Amino acid sequence: MSIIALITDFGLKDNYVGVIKGVISGINSKAKIIDISHNVSAQDIKQGAFLLFNSYNYFPKGTIFMGIVDPGVGSARKPLAIKTINYYFIGPDNGLLSVAANSDGIKDIRVIENGKYLLKKISTTFHGRDIFAPAAAHLSNKIAFSSLGKKEKNMEIIDISKPNIKNKILEGEVIHIDNFGNLITNIMKEDFIRFIDGKSFEGQIKGKRITKIYSFYSEARQNEVFFIESSFGFMELAVKNGKASSYFSVKKRCKLKVTI
Amino acid sequence: MSIIALITDFGLKDNYVGVIKGVISGINSKAKIIDISHNVSAQDIKQGAFLLFNSYNYFPKGTIFMGIVDPGVGSARKPLAIKTINYYFIGPDNGLLSVAANSDGIKDIRVIENGKYLLKKISTTFHGRDIFAPAAAHLSNKIAFSSLGKKEKNMEIIDISKPNIKNKILEGEVIHIDNFGNLITNIMKEDFIRFIDGKSFEGQIKGKRITKIYSFYSEARQNEVFFIESSFGFMELAVKNGKASSYFSVKKRCKLKVTI
Amino acid sequence: MSIIALITDFGLKDNYVGVIKGVISGINSKAKIIDISHNVSAQDIKQGAFLLFNSYNYFPKGTIFMGIVDPGVGSARKPLAIKTINYYFIGPDNGLLSVAANSDGIKDIRVIENGKYLLKKISTTFHGRDIFAPAAAHLSNKIAFSSLGKKEKNMEIIDISKPNIKNKILEGEVIHIDNFGNLITNIMKEDFIRFIDGKSFEGQIKGKRITKIYSFYSEARQNEVFFIESSFGFMELAVKNGKASSYFSVKKRCKLKVTI
Repeated sequence: MSIIALITDFGLKDNYVGVIKGVISGINSKAKIIDISHNVSAQDIKQGAFLLFNSYNYFPKGTIFMGIVDPGVGSARKPLAIKTINYYFIGPDNGLLSVAANSDGIKDIRVIENGKYLLKKISTTFHGRDIFAPAAAHLSNKIAFSSLGKKEKNMEIIDISKPNIKNKILEGEVIHIDNFGNLITNIMKEDFIRFIDGKSFEGQIKGKRITKIYSFYSEARQNEVFFIESSFGFMELAVKNGKASSYFSVKKRCKLKVTI
Repeated sequence: MSIIALITDFGLKDNYVGVIKGVISGINSKAKIIDISHNVSAQDIKQGAFLLFNSYNYFPKGTIFMGIVDPGVGSARKPLAIKTINYYFIGPDNGLLSVAANSDGIKDIRVIENGKYLLKKISTTFHGRDIFAPAAAHLSNKIAFSSLGKKEKNMEIIDISKPNIKNKILEGEVIHIDNFGNLITNIMKEDFIRFIDGKSFEGQIKGKRITKIYSFYSEARQNEVFFIESSFGFMELAVKNGKASSYFSVKKRCKLKVTI
Repeated sequence: MSIIALITDFGLKDNYVGVIKGVISGINSKAKIIDISHNVSAQDIKQGAFLLFNSYNYFPKGTIFMGIVDPGVGSARKPLAIKTINYYFIGPDNGLLSVAANSDGIKDIRVIENGKYLLKKISTTFHGRDIFAPAAAHLSNKIAFSSLGKKEKNMEIIDISKPNIKNKILEGEVIHIDNFGNLITNIMKEDFIRFIDGKSFEGQIKGKRITKIYSFYSEARQNEVFFIESSFGFMELAVKNGKASSYFSVKKRCKLKVTI
């Protein structure tokens, strides 16, 4: 059974996601559609790329990922289909797909342009429905990947996990705030551990300090703030039985500094 | 594979939608259930009718739509099943289904009353679970449509897209606010274009003006407010890289005036 | 077709639920996954247990319920699989599963520990992905229940619906607030009716009174506050065309008193 996994910033209030699933089901009624998330912050391509990167390799080989965070819809940005070693990625050429696709290993990139695999009428505002959904559905019906359109050599690339280290200061970013108010950073655990190198350290966000790192939530004392490895290998800031997002007053992406 | 598509105001916090899917799956384990939206504003029948109307014809022929925005649950309002040229619609007789069903072309209407196709115990508060879900599931099992109950001649009708034109003033309504803060109106593009007829125009919502119309989001300047055709053929108000809902301080349905 | 039904406090913003579905689909691509809710209040085990109890028996026999509200993830609390007369329950040993499982009738309890049925790498923060999802998916592939791990005799138990009656005062709890702002209590209708025994009564929440009980929402006058039987047999507080949660200023679980 073919899986099509969706990640978008469409939210769950409107009929956008439902209509996309209707279009897919009309082309391949047997496609199994899985929602990764539809609550990427509106137009936050980097956050979407981060979440897709953290998710893709938990899906079975052959999964078709359809990612749509698309502030440039209707402009000249290209609709892309990417074939990687284990997966397919469909979405706008704005970097959203680049982190996951590069990580898995890109084999072929196509511009989606074969009218046979698109809706008859292409709007200027909803390519998810008119271009990406039908392309993904036809791909799940096992059409030749190359039939989607002409080969593309370049695509937009986003860089996520390259925190900046200079003069014993590591600069990173809070890239996502999860449902529990945990702040997920773009600093991978290995980079963090190598940087602090067993020494005591001080993290800073908006003037507030963090000096602890734990391996389990349960190691922390009530209301203590600490670093912990997130479920996907990045460092995360948490407050025991509280919300780090409230403690640091963080509502969206922001800078983070660590010194030793 | 039979598709049952759901649109409700149940939200996603409670177990209501999950229980409905459990009931459906107990009757037809092979039904493919698709969520259009469960975040219709509470008890806003007109908004639900609008979203269903904008969605239904993207689904494959034979799809069974189950719509539940039902302030009158437990009262005398009838539970209906409607057969149209291409689809089936299941839900309360309060107008919710009427716009989509009329648009597709009604062939038969039945009152859902055959106990064989309902849960044993019918509550006064949750007909979605006790009446609509089992009826939809049995229908997806290909029972005869007429076996659901006796023929019904009349049903509640809602009128959505008839903006009022008088003395060079077009009066419409903001009928839905989407996830991006765009204000979706009940004015169809053709009606709008015919009305302004190439002349300059001024739209007004809550004392604030709109004088631009664009074909692409990318045509607008940063923070500019403008009309654009929505993804479903209705005129929409947008603010480039902002939220029209914040700009106009609109939180729910409200009036809109356009003069030339 | 095997059904796996999920109830968690993961929310729908992150990729947590999507990744769980990816893991399940990689092990059993034919599993039908149904969301009961992912918006249980963060770490509120009792609320999760309540919603699961209210949901399970609407699902077909053989359904595998995977419940994750797990403040103790990474600590010594055990991962459990419970076989009941009609169902399977998978989740942490913290009481979350106990109300539904006990109600259906427990036949066997196992600690999930057979590495063959887990992900290779077990994190300290996301057992939903690493332990519970693979265990549920393998179970849906019809492995022997006993192969998951060794027999367990005891598990954490939560008590939900035992309101306290003393000196003509019934003390209960608002245990859940639904999407419409209705306050769902832990007092079963039978207990309530037996207690008031046809006499007039006065309910109190945060100093505000309730003296009415109705069978239908439509019996109440505009803005009237009243008790009504909820869709799952518990007493509920509602305000006609309003929100009881706003009327009583209730945002989370709180006490409720009824006197006759």
